[in-house]
Amino acid sequence: MATINLDTTHDTICAISTPPGIGGIAVIRISGNKAIPIADSIFTSIHPGKTLGNQPANKALFGTIHEQDNIIDEVIATPFRAPHSFTGEDTVEISCHGSLYIQQHIVALLIQQGCRMAEAGEFTRRAFASGRIDLSQAEAVADLIAANTAAAHRLAMNQMRGKFSQRLSQLRNNLLEFVSLIELELDFSEEDVEFADRTRLQDLADNIAHELQQLANSFAIGNAIKNGIPTTIVGETNAGKSTLLNLLAHDEKALVSDIHGTTRDVIEDVIIIGGMQFRLIDTAGIRDTHDTIETMGIERTFDKLRQSDIVIWLIDSTDAPEKIAAMAQRIAPLCAGKHLIAVFNKADLLDKEQTERLTATYDTLPIDADTPLFISAKYNTGIDRLTQRLVAIARTSAGGSGDVIVTNIRHYEALTKALDAIQRVQQGLTTTLSADFIAQDIRECMHYLGEITGEISTNEILGSIFSRFCIGK
Amino acid sequence: MATINLDTTHDTICAISTPPGIGGIAVIRISGNKAIPIADSIFTSIHPGKTLGNQPANKALFGTIHEQDNIIDEVIATPFRAPHSFTGEDTVEISCHGSLYIQQHIVALLIQQGCRMAEAGEFTRRAFASGRIDLSQAEAVADLIAANTAAAHRLAMNQMRGKFSQRLSQLRNNLLEFVSLIELELDFSEEDVEFADRTRLQDLADNIAHELQQLANSFAIGNAIKNGIPTTIVGETNAGKSTLLNLLAHDEKALVSDIHGTTRDVIEDVIIIGGMQFRLIDTAGIRDTHDTIETMGIERTFDKLRQSDIVIWLIDSTDAPEKIAAMAQRIAPLCAGKHLIAVFNKADLLDKEQTERLTATYDTLPIDADTPLFISAKYNTGIDRLTQRLVAIARTSAGGSGDVIVTNIRHYEALTKALDAIQRVQQGLTTTLSADFIAQDIRECMHYLGEITGEISTNEILGSIFSRFCIGK
Repeated sequence: MATINLDTTHDTICAISTPPGIGGIAVIRISGNKAIPIADSIFTSIHPGKTLGNQPANKALFGTIHEQDNIIDEVIATPFRAPHSFTGEDTVEISCHGSLYIQQHIVALLIQQGCRMAEAGEFTRRAFASGRIDLSQAEAVADLIAANTAAAHRLAMNQMRGKFSQRLSQLRNNLLEFVSLIELELDFSEEDVEFADRTRLQDLADNIAHELQQLANSFAIGNAIKNGIPTTIVGETNAGKSTLLNLLAHDEKALVSDIHGTTRDVIEDVIIIGGMQFRLIDTAGIRDTHDTIETMGIERTFDKLRQSDIVIWLIDSTDAPEKIAAMAQRIAPLCAGKHLIAVFNKADLLDKEQTERLTATYDTLPIDADTPLFISAKYNTGIDRLTQRLVAIARTSAGGSGDVIVTNIRHYEALTKALDAIQRVQQGLTTTLSADFIAQDIRECMHYLGEITGEISTNEILGSIFSRFCIGK
Repeated sequence: MATINLDTTHDTICAISTPPGIGGIAVIRISGNKAIPIADSIFTSIHPGKTLGNQPANKALFGTIHEQDNIIDEVIATPFRAPHSFTGEDTVEISCHGSLYIQQHIVALLIQQGCRMAEAGEFTRRAFASGRIDLSQAEAVADLIAANTAAAHRLAMNQMRGKFSQRLSQLRNNLLEFVSLIELELDFSEEDVEFADRTRLQDLADNIAHELQQLANSFAIGNAIKNGIPTTIVGETNAGKSTLLNLLAHDEKALVSDIHGTTRDVIEDVIIIGGMQFRLIDTAGIRDTHDTIETMGIERTFDKLRQSDIVIWLIDSTDAPEKIAAMAQRIAPLCAGKHLIAVFNKADLLDKEQTERLTATYDTLPIDADTPLFISAKYNTGIDRLTQRLVAIARTSAGGSGDVIVTNIRHYEALTKALDAIQRVQQGLTTTLSADFIAQDIRECMHYLGEITGEISTNEILGSIFSRFCIGK
């Protein structure tokens, strides 16, 4: 792999790789040329004569860590040999008792013996440097560790296992074919020969542009899955929005009272339902008011509504039909292209006839939404149907966008720049721009794709990526 | 090993053994008859055909954890085979990425496949049940994990590696020899034969009593090392006690002001110096006062002083010699048998002549202490000499008590009861008590020693011991 300016050092590094704190066991990882002899200098197997150096790779040995004659711990040490390890270097994993004293003492001994403390992400950075994984896979390792929902986990796992890299690699191969055709033409330009069939080139450019566009588009979904799908609860003042938020979030984050206009700030809460993460946004109730601060709150409600993917419109069932219709008029234009869920709250106060009348009113409203739900936030009834609806919407969005979804803003930016470049190529082909300009744009497109996988990378980029890792990974 | 009523089950158990939280990697441990097939049911090696079941023990395999077709993580799994594992049972350790989602998901899969969540300390309990370690060693595992100083760590490590158990085992052998001699006598009692030489029996009882006494005595030191050596700072009001405590503790725990009598409560702080732990106790200043609450504070000062091993008497260098002498009179009787360190504070205010005069005054005082130290708590000078003195005292105490030190109150109580029993034996031998009573007392002594190692144990005792462990150990 052609990496530029990669800061590889030949230090042997070590770190506590398990979560910080006290536990049954902890794992200390050592990686580098001298990992095995350094570990052997403080480790004694219970089987005399056996060392990490003279035993087969991947074989766990039981023994002790000692400092001169003092036994620091009884441990299991496992050597892994280059290139068959996570970093691609010689590696030793020491599984010790999980006391802070022992963990720190073993690291101190390793440093005395010539190890250096690993920097954040340095094990993964070495895996990248040794060509075990590309940069997008390395980034996926950090995402994988941070993933807290099934959906985010699945995206990170796909990326770590190289699905995104494969797609990019196909694109680069296509671009390579493209540029070689163009450059062939260029070499013979004085002879005015046109080797590359312009129609074929056009098709190729269109396909690549389409694919790049699709990947770039998937970022909206990927980002929503990673950080939570923005979901706004709107409605009249006192419709019960904060009570509903609290029910969904299972705690008392929003201030609840019977006074109209209690919620002036926009409150966000991340909740996980059915393996999907939602960024729930409670908002100031919408009503005509002369209170300046409250007016600002309502303005912000509309802002939040514009940014959200899902809108839960909470309706006070006891309101007059005209009032409901007026609200529908107000929010409908803001909800175009979003998933709107209409929810009648305070359903406990309705009899059958009233319910039917409300449904009839609802059918006449100028909004684009499914059948409404009837709930009672106060008595916690009907909430299950709402959460099922939320999960169904989230799954449909996530599922409908192919197997590769972009979740990383760095990748998104590179894809956007690559798309710009390929769009210039498309244009150049129609305007019969000279081949060398087209070739330059194709190279630029390849350059940006190379940034994603790390074939093109600088120390600055690498530093900023790996500094976000935890120590020990 | 003869264990009574031990609640061994044949469940296969699993738990996250690394500290709770997010990290580079985490380790999930499985133990029991079905550990290997259960792990194999969710693990696929990257080498087709290799399974945890068909590979050699202790060999780390790289592969994936999957739920049907979904890959949950790339992991390293290592099988250990009975009896060569920590628990003595078949065991698998899965080293996965340290995301909470992955850790919990793998545990959930293992439970679906027939594992049960391990209870706190259950892995160690199984190591005890299978005879890998005795009860005092099992308890040492918990102490080892909790140890936060070099000294506490060394005690726990010695106990875990069986030094205490060996000593108890020798004692039991001696007692066994003793009781067999006595019982031989008993069998032939009607013939009025005295097989056992009473003088020899007396020697044997004396030796055992001496050894038990020594072990029981070591508890004071062991407990001090484990929980911190109680160290009280006493002195006149405004001598600078709180400032000194803050200096030693490196933070601002005690309220400092220039007003006499600021500290009314007894403040405790645990500090670690030179690998030893001290429980530093700041106290209300001693002076004659009519303030009721302050008088209570002074009473408590004397109480704390009685309970401490080390007393730091802080003297205001600017005080009149009579005042210093009066204080010496007051505290001297309370410091008998303790380590007393006299410290002249505010040494920055002294010239050479004044220092010499103070030293001369000091030499006439009716106290048992080394040469005094001169410090300035305000300017942080001379503090190093004080900490060196503290560490030297702590090390001498710890070092002077043989290689086995009792740290566990359960062991201390059992030793005390065993000592009672053997003292009855000593008495019985002098009063020529009948052999069957003596034999009964020896058996009782053995019973209490057996409680320590777990040869005699009940589910209740075991439950109370292992419930204090962390999950996963």
